[in-house]
Amino acid sequence: MKEKSGTEKKQGNLRIFGIRAVMEAVESGKEIESLYIQKGAGGSLYRDLKKIAREYDLPMQAVPPEKLRYLGDKNHQGVVAFISPIVFHSLEQLIPSIYERGEAPLILILDRITDVRNFGAISRSAECLGAHGLLIPRKGAAQINADAVKTSAGALLTIPVCRERNLKNSITFLRESGLQVVACTEKAQKYPAEVDLSMPTALILGSEEDGISGEYLKLTDEAVRIPMRGAIASLNVSVAAGVILYETVRQRLAGGS
Amino acid sequence: MKEKSGTEKKQGNLRIFGIRAVMEAVESGKEIESLYIQKGAGGSLYRDLKKIAREYDLPMQAVPPEKLRYLGDKNHQGVVAFISPIVFHSLEQLIPSIYERGEAPLILILDRITDVRNFGAISRSAECLGAHGLLIPRKGAAQINADAVKTSAGALLTIPVCRERNLKNSITFLRESGLQVVACTEKAQKYPAEVDLSMPTALILGSEEDGISGEYLKLTDEAVRIPMRGAIASLNVSVAAGVILYETVRQRLAGGS
Repeated sequence: MKEKSGTEKKQGNLRIFGIRAVMEAVESGKEIESLYIQKGAGGSLYRDLKKIAREYDLPMQAVPPEKLRYLGDKNHQGVVAFISPIVFHSLEQLIPSIYERGEAPLILILDRITDVRNFGAISRSAECLGAHGLLIPRKGAAQINADAVKTSAGALLTIPVCRERNLKNSITFLRESGLQVVACTEKAQKYPAEVDLSMPTALILGSEEDGISGEYLKLTDEAVRIPMRGAIASLNVSVAAGVILYETVRQRLAGGS
Repeated sequence: MKEKSGTEKKQGNLRIFGIRAVMEAVESGKEIESLYIQKGAGGSLYRDLKKIAREYDLPMQAVPPEKLRYLGDKNHQGVVAFISPIVFHSLEQLIPSIYERGEAPLILILDRITDVRNFGAISRSAECLGAHGLLIPRKGAAQINADAVKTSAGALLTIPVCRERNLKNSITFLRESGLQVVACTEKAQKYPAEVDLSMPTALILGSEEDGISGEYLKLTDEAVRIPMRGAIASLNVSVAAGVILYETVRQRLAGGS
């Protein structure tokens, strides 16, 4: 089999096909969103790739040949990878840089917001309303693809996104860095206006189905709920994000709650 | 031709086909969202229907036979109508009823919000955050169809919607009824927290493309803009609606701005 490989941009998502091309991409620091390897593929090059995939903790998946044919028109050699359209930031570098600019950090943590449009819409509001960054988990987050970037009105290309393997550790890091962690949940007693959001703050939003995971709720300093008056009593998560971010900006302009 | 007619529910939208069935629906007070009549259709029944359509100001459209075949599987006799899934309210009856309950009216006016999902999302937030009703124009509003009801999480079946032919007259009526009219526009100087929204209030939101029409802006008492901090500086209109409604609730809970 003659070795051919390369990159291709289709529907706004950059994909890479061929073993060597994918290995080079990984080693040059590209963010791999997903890596598909043909089921049962063998040989030394495959073994090398799988080793690299484990080493970099890439989201690898074994798929039937039909899926690969669908994903890549060209000679894919049993390997197709999707590259993230954005560059991720490190939380450990981001937080000090905000303090150094003399600002009170405002970070938005998204726990299991998997809907691409909601994620895009939240990113847009976060950028508009001055959040310094988004924190999402490596697993159980929305795919950051062309649709997400489009729904974000380009915000995802501007606002720092930190994708971390262990959200508990990241939340602990935020607290150790002087941020109060505030859960936005319908079960809270306090309204957002009753908590001082002008302080360094990380806001957590959970999925529309299940809310915030119990293990993260344990790590929060405050919990707030948006005051509801109607019969439905449940805002769309992207609207809820906009509201809590607005309340933060309002307080910061007014110099406190 | 044997006369057959009836109603059919498909994809959540109620449609009525056949001349007599449509005439009966109109006369029994059903809200017709759109009325399609086959191009070149003639005869006394058609003339009667067209007369009724003009009398009730129905959104009538002449269409080729293929369109009707696509819309209705059965014998449509050249006539298909879509019925609104909601019942509309009269602004003249709604406003006094709010005052009678001892509440300060909060009405959301939507100027050329034509996107069905944005309209549905705004309706959901409006219901959740205690708006008493939505005011939309007869022409240039989003279609109120099954998609809108779904995106609204059912809010459109609960919150009163007033659809008026002349929005200028309706805004004048609101002002004469003691409501301040507040434009939400990026061009405003004041922030929402600087205007007393605990008073009887109508908030106007315009299209994402053009904002609020000049003819309505002239009729406003105040204009506010949501404080922005990022580079994108433009919230999605459904997030903006959620934010301004939240600010109103916050002020009303706190007893003023």
